Amino acid sequence: MNQTDKLGEECGVFGFYDNDGCDVARMIYYGLYALQHRGQQSCGIAVNDDGIIHQYKNLGLVNECFHEGTLKTLTGNIGVGHVRYSAGSGDDDRANCQPLVSLYNKGSLTVSLNGNLINAAELRKKYMKTGSIFQSANDTEVIMHLAAHYRSRTHSIEDAMKLVMDELRGAFSVVMMSPRKLIGIRDPHGFRPLCIGKIGNSYVLSSETVGLDVVGAKFVRDVMPGEIVVIGVNGLTSIPYENPPKPSLCVFEYVYFARPDSVIDGVSVYNARVATGQRLAGVAPVEADVVIGVPDSGLNFAVGYAQASGIPYGDGFIKNRYTGRTFIKPSQNERVDAVHIKLNALRANIEGKRVVMVDDSIVRGTTCANIIKMLKECGAKEVHMRVASPKFLWRCYFGTDIPSRKDLIAVTHTTEEIRQKIGADSLAFLPVEELDRIGLRDDFGYCNACFTGDYPVDVGEDRE
Amino acid sequence: MNQTDKLGEECGVFGFYDNDGCDVARMIYYGLYALQHRGQQSCGIAVNDDGIIHQYKNLGLVNECFHEGTLKTLTGNIGVGHVRYSAGSGDDDRANCQPLVSLYNKGSLTVSLNGNLINAAELRKKYMKTGSIFQSANDTEVIMHLAAHYRSRTHSIEDAMKLVMDELRGAFSVVMMSPRKLIGIRDPHGFRPLCIGKIGNSYVLSSETVGLDVVGAKFVRDVMPGEIVVIGVNGLTSIPYENPPKPSLCVFEYVYFARPDSVIDGVSVYNARVATGQRLAGVAPVEADVVIGVPDSGLNFAVGYAQASGIPYGDGFIKNRYTGRTFIKPSQNERVDAVHIKLNALRANIEGKRVVMVDDSIVRGTTCANIIKMLKECGAKEVHMRVASPKFLWRCYFGTDIPSRKDLIAVTHTTEEIRQKIGADSLAFLPVEELDRIGLRDDFGYCNACFTGDYPVDVGEDRE
Amino acid sequence: MNQTDKLGEECGVFGFYDNDGCDVARMIYYGLYALQHRGQQSCGIAVNDDGIIHQYKNLGLVNECFHEGTLKTLTGNIGVGHVRYSAGSGDDDRANCQPLVSLYNKGSLTVSLNGNLINAAELRKKYMKTGSIFQSANDTEVIMHLAAHYRSRTHSIEDAMKLVMDELRGAFSVVMMSPRKLIGIRDPHGFRPLCIGKIGNSYVLSSETVGLDVVGAKFVRDVMPGEIVVIGVNGLTSIPYENPPKPSLCVFEYVYFARPDSVIDGVSVYNARVATGQRLAGVAPVEADVVIGVPDSGLNFAVGYAQASGIPYGDGFIKNRYTGRTFIKPSQNERVDAVHIKLNALRANIEGKRVVMVDDSIVRGTTCANIIKMLKECGAKEVHMRVASPKFLWRCYFGTDIPSRKDLIAVTHTTEEIRQKIGADSLAFLPVEELDRIGLRDDFGYCNACFTGDYPVDVGEDRE
Amino acid sequence: MNQTDKLGEECGVFGFYDNDGCDVARMIYYGLYALQHRGQQSCGIAVNDDGIIHQYKNLGLVNECFHEGTLKTLTGNIGVGHVRYSAGSGDDDRANCQPLVSLYNKGSLTVSLNGNLINAAELRKKYMKTGSIFQSANDTEVIMHLAAHYRSRTHSIEDAMKLVMDELRGAFSVVMMSPRKLIGIRDPHGFRPLCIGKIGNSYVLSSETVGLDVVGAKFVRDVMPGEIVVIGVNGLTSIPYENPPKPSLCVFEYVYFARPDSVIDGVSVYNARVATGQRLAGVAPVEADVVIGVPDSGLNFAVGYAQASGIPYGDGFIKNRYTGRTFIKPSQNERVDAVHIKLNALRANIEGKRVVMVDDSIVRGTTCANIIKMLKECGAKEVHMRVASPKFLWRCYFGTDIPSRKDLIAVTHTTEEIRQKIGADSLAFLPVEELDRIGLRDDFGYCNACFTGDYPVDVGEDRE
Repeated sequence: MNQTDKLGEECGVFGFYDNDGCDVARMIYYGLYALQHRGQQSCGIAVNDDGIIHQYKNLGLVNECFHEGTLKTLTGNIGVGHVRYSAGSGDDDRANCQPLVSLYNKGSLTVSLNGNLINAAELRKKYMKTGSIFQSANDTEVIMHLAAHYRSRTHSIEDAMKLVMDELRGAFSVVMMSPRKLIGIRDPHGFRPLCIGKIGNSYVLSSETVGLDVVGAKFVRDVMPGEIVVIGVNGLTSIPYENPPKPSLCVFEYVYFARPDSVIDGVSVYNARVATGQRLAGVAPVEADVVIGVPDSGLNFAVGYAQASGIPYGDGFIKNRYTGRTFIKPSQNERVDAVHIKLNALRANIEGKRVVMVDDSIVRGTTCANIIKMLKECGAKEVHMRVASPKFLWRCYFGTDIPSRKDLIAVTHTTEEIRQKIGADSLAFLPVEELDRIGLRDDFGYCNACFTGDYPVDVGEDRE
Repeated sequence: MNQTDKLGEECGVFGFYDNDGCDVARMIYYGLYALQHRGQQSCGIAVNDDGIIHQYKNLGLVNECFHEGTLKTLTGNIGVGHVRYSAGSGDDDRANCQPLVSLYNKGSLTVSLNGNLINAAELRKKYMKTGSIFQSANDTEVIMHLAAHYRSRTHSIEDAMKLVMDELRGAFSVVMMSPRKLIGIRDPHGFRPLCIGKIGNSYVLSSETVGLDVVGAKFVRDVMPGEIVVIGVNGLTSIPYENPPKPSLCVFEYVYFARPDSVIDGVSVYNARVATGQRLAGVAPVEADVVIGVPDSGLNFAVGYAQASGIPYGDGFIKNRYTGRTFIKPSQNERVDAVHIKLNALRANIEGKRVVMVDDSIVRGTTCANIIKMLKECGAKEVHMRVASPKFLWRCYFGTDIPSRKDLIAVTHTTEEIRQKIGADSLAFLPVEELDRIGLRDDFGYCNACFTGDYPVDVGEDRE
Repeated sequence: MNQTDKLGEECGVFGFYDNDGCDVARMIYYGLYALQHRGQQSCGIAVNDDGIIHQYKNLGLVNECFHEGTLKTLTGNIGVGHVRYSAGSGDDDRANCQPLVSLYNKGSLTVSLNGNLINAAELRKKYMKTGSIFQSANDTEVIMHLAAHYRSRTHSIEDAMKLVMDELRGAFSVVMMSPRKLIGIRDPHGFRPLCIGKIGNSYVLSSETVGLDVVGAKFVRDVMPGEIVVIGVNGLTSIPYENPPKPSLCVFEYVYFARPDSVIDGVSVYNARVATGQRLAGVAPVEADVVIGVPDSGLNFAVGYAQASGIPYGDGFIKNRYTGRTFIKPSQNERVDAVHIKLNALRANIEGKRVVMVDDSIVRGTTCANIIKMLKECGAKEVHMRVASPKFLWRCYFGTDIPSRKDLIAVTHTTEEIRQKIGADSLAFLPVEELDRIGLRDDFGYCNACFTGDYPVDVGEDRE
Repeated sequence: MNQTDKLGEECGVFGFYDNDGCDVARMIYYGLYALQHRGQQSCGIAVNDDGIIHQYKNLGLVNECFHEGTLKTLTGNIGVGHVRYSAGSGDDDRANCQPLVSLYNKGSLTVSLNGNLINAAELRKKYMKTGSIFQSANDTEVIMHLAAHYRSRTHSIEDAMKLVMDELRGAFSVVMMSPRKLIGIRDPHGFRPLCIGKIGNSYVLSSETVGLDVVGAKFVRDVMPGEIVVIGVNGLTSIPYENPPKPSLCVFEYVYFARPDSVIDGVSVYNARVATGQRLAGVAPVEADVVIGVPDSGLNFAVGYAQASGIPYGDGFIKNRYTGRTFIKPSQNERVDAVHIKLNALRANIEGKRVVMVDDSIVRGTTCANIIKMLKECGAKEVHMRVASPKFLWRCYFGTDIPSRKDLIAVTHTTEEIRQKIGADSLAFLPVEELDRIGLRDDFGYCNACFTGDYPVDVGEDRE
């Protein structure tokens, strides 16, 4: 649901190194299409045709921006793509479309980033002092400058990227292209996912495994936190990170961002959600007749809750499939409700029933009240809301578009106050201690700072 | 799924008679948006502003065609809307956009039609003989000519429409507008749905109840087969049909066309599908580990199959939500599979399992093979396909876009041949005798001619 | 100049009957492009492919509406095209795009009209009484109904059109298409131009000769006032009008509407303008250093004025060629002047000089003042305005978009008052008595009712 | 005329420094609209809002790219604009839209360039060696890097730009913006024009004086070759060039590029063309009945030829005003001629006459033959072509889009061969020795290298 009560992700990245005569631009097109849920603001593809970089970037969805004619101009055997979410600043965002392409002393550099640098301002300052100029507000451009800087002073892009890695702080899954190589980088904490696939003799890098599935590539493995992988004429080379910190994958990738059919760091997103729903049933049980989920993100959790509670699962809502950017929203004083236009309660499963309604999270809490009202109007006897993540309390510095604390309902309201505000008969959140197991792996850690305030990286004093 | 292996409906119709100062055009906009699944080719709204008809029609989705500025020009207190499916003739279809608006001796007529006339050609011929001229290939225009003809010879639109009803043969749910009245008509067999709603003092007519839900209107009742309802300053008047035949609602409304959250002729579409799935489990059981549905139309049937069989229900596929008309389809010789781009199997529920895959129908059978292949590649041990409707064998003359018989796979192949072709481990269709109970009402009949060839209306000798 | 101080024409019409395997739709496309000055609101092409009419119509310029792909669908050997000017009513004008296409008892009718019927309302009423219905506000539709009516009662389209001609009153140059014939009609007064051309064995009908030139056709002759020409398998047949009234071609075709490179009723538009400029010099002489014209319509008159007066001609203005519908106009309180943006004075020919500035007409007088101010700011010592037509005093009922009388500056102001208002040092209009010779033919008459109020056709009592 | 037989200019630049509360973005919008003839490929505006740069750039014409909403976001008091011609490389040219905006150590830099650097490749190489990275193929970016480099090492943008000027070789008229200043630069040879205007207390910089006229600004003076002008809170400061070489303004600015109503380096473009036409009459006389010009660029020369020869001037062609990028061009094997579609001969001035046809230049010679054929078909007894510039023989390195030498007709054909090829009865070019006086100033020099091969700047050995 494109409702305003959800978080926004920054981006999806994709790369392709062809050894079989594939149409690289088309492969990236389909890869980006599968990653579209990670960003709908802009998209871009750059392909390397024997040193010449052909590129096309524009605002809009992948299927809006690219046409047959455009793809045909993007010839070459290595390519990089990007989809971008934007927090919606008023300015036109063309300059921030990715991938970024540049020429420097050792040839071309093409960079796509999913993430956010904590020390971008410092790095910009430092490099501007030595004469660098910046043409966008993108952290991607910072990485490009560092890569060019170190590549000029080392003997290989591999050596250069190791030095770049030492300077960057924050969350960054990068797919980039040197004149002859495709490179993937994942920050030492592994905040954002990035995986490797293979189709025939060709290599694929993708933010999520669904990007591999769509082009028919087999999953090889995830890029490890802090790892640099370089794909060239001799195949794939790995430069692991020395002494990496405990991983801290963004737990919201499992909660909301990633597609359920993706597998991240060895864990199926779908399974993680079902298991979380199961635990939620254990810690926040309730007597009821049916368990429903709020589409699309609440559905998998509801399946788990139903399984563990023994209460039957049912479809609670039908979502209108025909969305579009130009949809005319109802104004405040109209009888028509904005939520109801996109989401209709399925009376057959609701009427006369005590309903458990599961959603993935509550951020601002603006739409819950309308959804619960809709269920009651459909004849629900009781509505018990269960939230599959803890209370949202802290800002994110790692590429997630979270509103300021004053807009987070859990910062300003107690659970009981929220319950009253949204009109639920009961309300429970997933406890933080349960959250740590959402990824289902004991040997792996997760960043849950948005719930706990424990940032795995120093985010500075002066920040809110 | 926008796959080519599905049937197309002809249209959705919507009407609004305002008594409370509503913004009529916006109400129709939202109503059409909720009916968008019934037609995506074109849409239109016409509003009556004290005798002056303002209208806007265009090719495309509701959210693409209408903008705030357009709606503002559509002032008035009675209005009619339309969404249209098109069989995709090569010609530009602008002339066939609805509603149709005309002026005649007694003022204006505005007509929206869902359905198809069996005797359109005869009627055109007959009226052309007396000097009528036709400006489109629309059956809607035929109804408009008849209405004008009889209104000129009678004392009220009500009397006229009774005479019109006597001349028309076929499927027709009509929402139309005289200078001062909103009129709804449903053919004597009740092939297509049409219902009445009320919000405050205002009246709504809609092809499905979801059109009422979206604008906050309460369901009043269905228009009865053969009934004419007229809404004017004195409220709603009903002109029932004398000696109506046994109703024959198109059974495909339950199988595929209607939204599951609609209720048609007293039966919840969702419930009808779940019950059908249950019966399918009874007549075509199989040992398996999971029941999945093919999105979106197969899902509800799968829920029923799971309930009756005791085999757990699971999500089998994730569908990409970002569709659009300009999507670049893979060409034949590409490695990328067209079905796989839109639909990805959810490995967590498939791998190592014996799968029952339920879909609503098989028409051409073109995509089943690819979907089953996808499941096998995901590790499904067995795939048992269960089809929630009988074999598709006959043409439809009542507004459904069914390919010619030679393209119907069930006409040219036995069940075993189809099973081999699609690569399933077993295959079963719903028997025709079970179908008759899909609507869950003993006192009501259904048109199932596409499965049986038993047309409730004489469709002529020379037709295939 | 796209200034608001000019009149608007209603339309341009074009037809093609192919006998040589031409691409008919492309021929019409180029023909309409050459007639674009007669209407920029909408355009359309309909082509007859062995009885099947393919058509495409839309709002916008010819080069905006039609693309290669569209033209390719318009196959056939007879075709009709239309460009339309619109007075700019607020409503969406799609329903009024032409040509209109219809089916009736004897097949298809396709009609394009340039002009306006005086008795349209009466005819609509009359035909509605016998059951006709009208789907637009177009006079074209009236003609279509009459043609169908009479064709149903006669043995040929030729006979039918003779009867139609008797019923129509007003200005009408029509290009239409029956199932097998291309037909051209010009009203008995010949208000609007229409000519016949031939290329190879194929026939062309066009509002102006420039439509022939662009496709390489040779001019054959003008359609005579009241004549019906029918082109079919046996070539061209003429049905002259019996006892026609004295012709009254709209004199504004020479003054402003037509392109200077057209020849209408035997008179070169360019020559007519030059000759008028010469006469203007004779009746309204002035001592000056240079004669300039206001682009584009004033230029030819200025050439004539210069020739007769002996004062050198000079380019007075440069017009910006890059216009477009989306141009952002300056608001009232800006320093930037709307006229100046499109038109810049050429200082080299103005500075220090006494200037005679010739324009074709003054309707509202809104832009003259700004243009004269621009000349003075450029250093003109004196500006003497000479208007190549008489004072505009009366409404037009024959298809010209003339504002109501209260907006006509000459109705409300004396010549001296206008002179003061526009800031000219002197001002003179062409006397009405000179106007009669603008067409340069003694044997031909002109409608000059907008200057004299002498309408060649009774326009009714109750009209202003 | 948008014919392929004309040269392309690189760009137009415009700047505005507001001291009166003007809407800066709108002023630039109108300024660019007046300069649109200098480049139709892309346009852009950047405005400085107290240090924050708002910008919008896109492909297309000024009136296509900018809308009210866009202009409203471009707030601030200093601004820079750009229109760009493109040689039409296949790649998408978005990355090369200007102005370029960047941040560096001392704040922002915004740069618009008209021209071409001879030593761009060397400068790129040099700066890449010290770590600079380039994100476009633009020479503008080179200038931006140099400006940032030197500004980091000096105490003012003025000092920095003096050092930049020493490094740049080639043609460059630049309008740029530092955080608080508007800066104009013209290369030491003055290849491209640049002038200063004032409106109220605000300053304007513009490629041509027509940019001043359109916003109501008064012409102050031209920027001198090699001069740097800096406009800030204290008004305008000039940094003249020490020991400048003899100026060498591109003579093609007078011949073709500039608008006739512009005044460049003290000479009216219109007067220069008329005077050249007069001289052409002197050196290449012929007996004839009428002198015509080829629109639009040949018209002014024809006026001069007529004046000096005593042969009457006449309009020879009417040009269709409704052009657009999507116009469907005739294919080779069609009867319709591409030139004829845009240009129609005016028979009234041609038939039976001996015609002198004046055009500004012949580059490839591809359209002359068709134009002359058109005149002959219109009845011209003789056609004598007179070309208002010498034979085009050499490449341009200063920003003009000239085809390679093998495509220049004068390189491969003698005058007599050209005459035969184009079908003229006689043909003459302006002799080179006459060309030197085209600018009408003895104290000024012109670059005529395209005619003579005498490049005012060393263009390197290895260049063709």
